[in-house]
Amino acid sequence: MEVVGEFLGYLAGICTAIVFLPQSLQTIKTKDVTGLSLSTYIIYCIGMVSWISYGVYLHSIQMILFNAISLFFAMIILYIIVQNKIKKQ
Amino acid sequence: MEVVGEFLGYLAGICTAIVFLPQSLQTIKTKDVTGLSLSTYIIYCIGMVSWISYGVYLHSIQMILFNAISLFFAMIILYIIVQNKIKKQ
Repeated sequence: MEVVGEFLGYLAGICTAIVFLPQSLQTIKTKDVTGLSLSTYIIYCIGMVSWISYGVYLHSIQMILFNAISLFFAMIILYIIVQNKIKKQ
Repeated sequence: MEVVGEFLGYLAGICTAIVFLPQSLQTIKTKDVTGLSLSTYIIYCIGMVSWISYGVYLHSIQMILFNAISLFFAMIILYIIVQNKIKKQ
């Protein structure tokens, strides 16, 4: 069962890390942010900073690493959304 | 330090739970999915199922609960994206 548990933890962590890779590539390419929710990306980035801080507290390198990668991609999307909103003003 | 650690864990968990609430409300309202990446929502749902399974393995009610709420909202968005793709065919 320990192997299954470790596998699930790594699968979950890797999914978290790469989840916004396709979204960020699509948004960089198309610059289409009309359907994207600004609030969702703000909450996501706050969440990721909390997970990274919690990882530091628990001394978990995996938690810090996976969430830092995820934060990186989410921040690219957040940046493009904000840039778009500024341009529209 | 224990209080700070618990606070960070709960903040991170709550952010994970509600992150797709604004996105799902926006997508339900506007039905605009042009900027949304299908792959991102598929990876997110696989990730959430993995986190829930990992929560079951670790006997963590919080991990199961927060990720189940997040999965619920992500699945609403995924459903609308897929529905839209089928309509376009």
